[in-house]
Amino acid sequence: MADRDPFALTCPVPIGAYPTVLLAHGGGGRLMQQLIAQVFAPAFSNPALDAQHDASLVQAGATRLAFTTDSYVVKPLFFPGGDIGSLAINGTVNDLAMAGARPLALSAGFILEEGLPIDTLTRIVASMREAAAQVGVHVVTGDTKVVDRGKGDGVFINTAGIGIVEHQLTIGPAAVRPGDAVIISGDVGRHGIAIMASREGLQFETTIESDCAPLVAPVLDLISAGIDVHCLRDLTRGGLASALNEIASVRGCSIAIDERAVAVREDVQGACELLGFDPLYVANEGRFVAFVPPDQAARAVAVLRRHAVSSDAVVIGTVSEDPSNLVTVKTRIGASRVVDMLSGEQLPRIC
Amino acid sequence: MADRDPFALTCPVPIGAYPTVLLAHGGGGRLMQQLIAQVFAPAFSNPALDAQHDASLVQAGATRLAFTTDSYVVKPLFFPGGDIGSLAINGTVNDLAMAGARPLALSAGFILEEGLPIDTLTRIVASMREAAAQVGVHVVTGDTKVVDRGKGDGVFINTAGIGIVEHQLTIGPAAVRPGDAVIISGDVGRHGIAIMASREGLQFETTIESDCAPLVAPVLDLISAGIDVHCLRDLTRGGLASALNEIASVRGCSIAIDERAVAVREDVQGACELLGFDPLYVANEGRFVAFVPPDQAARAVAVLRRHAVSSDAVVIGTVSEDPSNLVTVKTRIGASRVVDMLSGEQLPRIC
Repeated sequence: MADRDPFALTCPVPIGAYPTVLLAHGGGGRLMQQLIAQVFAPAFSNPALDAQHDASLVQAGATRLAFTTDSYVVKPLFFPGGDIGSLAINGTVNDLAMAGARPLALSAGFILEEGLPIDTLTRIVASMREAAAQVGVHVVTGDTKVVDRGKGDGVFINTAGIGIVEHQLTIGPAAVRPGDAVIISGDVGRHGIAIMASREGLQFETTIESDCAPLVAPVLDLISAGIDVHCLRDLTRGGLASALNEIASVRGCSIAIDERAVAVREDVQGACELLGFDPLYVANEGRFVAFVPPDQAARAVAVLRRHAVSSDAVVIGTVSEDPSNLVTVKTRIGASRVVDMLSGEQLPRIC
Repeated sequence: MADRDPFALTCPVPIGAYPTVLLAHGGGGRLMQQLIAQVFAPAFSNPALDAQHDASLVQAGATRLAFTTDSYVVKPLFFPGGDIGSLAINGTVNDLAMAGARPLALSAGFILEEGLPIDTLTRIVASMREAAAQVGVHVVTGDTKVVDRGKGDGVFINTAGIGIVEHQLTIGPAAVRPGDAVIISGDVGRHGIAIMASREGLQFETTIESDCAPLVAPVLDLISAGIDVHCLRDLTRGGLASALNEIASVRGCSIAIDERAVAVREDVQGACELLGFDPLYVANEGRFVAFVPPDQAARAVAVLRRHAVSSDAVVIGTVSEDPSNLVTVKTRIGASRVVDMLSGEQLPRIC
């Protein structure tokens, strides 16, 4: 996800408490929000940035554009279900999709570490080509830098994307309404666990593959079906829990979800229990939530289920005006617990 | 400069000769061109990329956009006349300017190394804000990643930029015509020498400051003055010599310049002699060449001289149909020498 401006988020620990950058500052949680709020937002504040979307909206003549960027530093470079190349394309394409935009063009900036095997780079680039072809978008401009051995980590990739916004909806946290149904596009936790298992050499009975995939088709289908989509968000760093917390904080509302409705594959659940992770916070790269009016929820779910990538779409919760701005989960045993925003990611460098 | 696709460039050394990435692969010279030709271009080939501009042209509805990206890995982060922040804004804004585009919006992706002082980041971001304000453009979307200590080098920044193309000209190597005058916007060599001196702790009698500056205003003024601009190129990695070689190779023409017309400040010349550098190959971050019809050259120079950043603009040479595709320099003593493309940059990590 592109960073969002968190003016409205609570920042209990002042950034001054951390005079240097920590790994958690890149984790999509509260520390990253603090870094943005205290360093980036005051410097760069402008209406497009302050709107807090995955992608910013920019008017270009008569055309409404979405514009987004992400750098990818995932470790390892190759993992079950994907690699840094497919991630760099899908991640940015998905940020455009979360604005309801049709991807128009991508850029790719490579920071290579001296000593990287050319074959490795060639494999990554081939994977990028394939991922881009899958959504019918081109990398139209690029850049290559090389840093000295020991000053990088193989390869880092930045992709930026331009999309065309062809609808008249306002999609974003501000458009969320009390009563909105919260729909999730499928099971959670696979990307983060796939990375973790691959990085640490963990063996499970089954190979857990990343869910890394493009989300453009189901989103554009939702919009062309006439669903009044209020908000979309992909569930990357910080997972479902962080995404819902951000939306609740920015919008000023509460969100209640039913844990039983959130699918977690048995092997992912097992790995989470073994590793001490909560699957609600584990990163995904092919999952999103959609906020829609309650009377359109069933139709929206039906539209999403037409697409393989969102064939398990289901309503998981609802929005209320409750001013506590909390995200609560009704657990499997019927109790209710608050899921707060974490300080950082449970797993660093997952994207 | 954003990488250009060098299909037409000669690549005498096969990339297979280098199984791993070398520092020179990022240097803007022949090795980088080989990497692009053999790894990136075959994978990503498409008309916009293949047009070989500093920025690619993308049609968005009725609007013609320019789109570009660059990552910045300069070392040290702060140097006389600028820092990685001002460089990251001006470099990308200048790539848009080289398409004759008016900058519309920028993205910023930060890759931070664990342990980077927050104060350092704050200074860099303030410098970015100032540079962006100078050209009236906003950073509208951003991203922050953090990598483990020893896996980065303080901070790397990627910026991508969207610009609006408001003219009807075709600006690029393909539009260069025999007889075109080659205009340079000012003296060369300051950025590279400033970086080198700063990095190596060299002391000269005077402090040599980088020429890092935005080039939008003089370029847009050239176009609005009705000059038929054929090609524009900023003189970054590889300097004037590499820029002219790229254009000559892509267009299939020869270019002759007069060394006496290319201004090199005395202190820069002295430093180059001391360090064994040829100023024609040293990187600049606020200099460009413009190719214009010969009968419009005097007027173009007059327009450029209205702007402080290009107040020393002067005609330095001319284009001929000579099929050798060579760049030749008439030296101060009247002899003629060929300036070829180097394998890499004389100075790594200058941007």
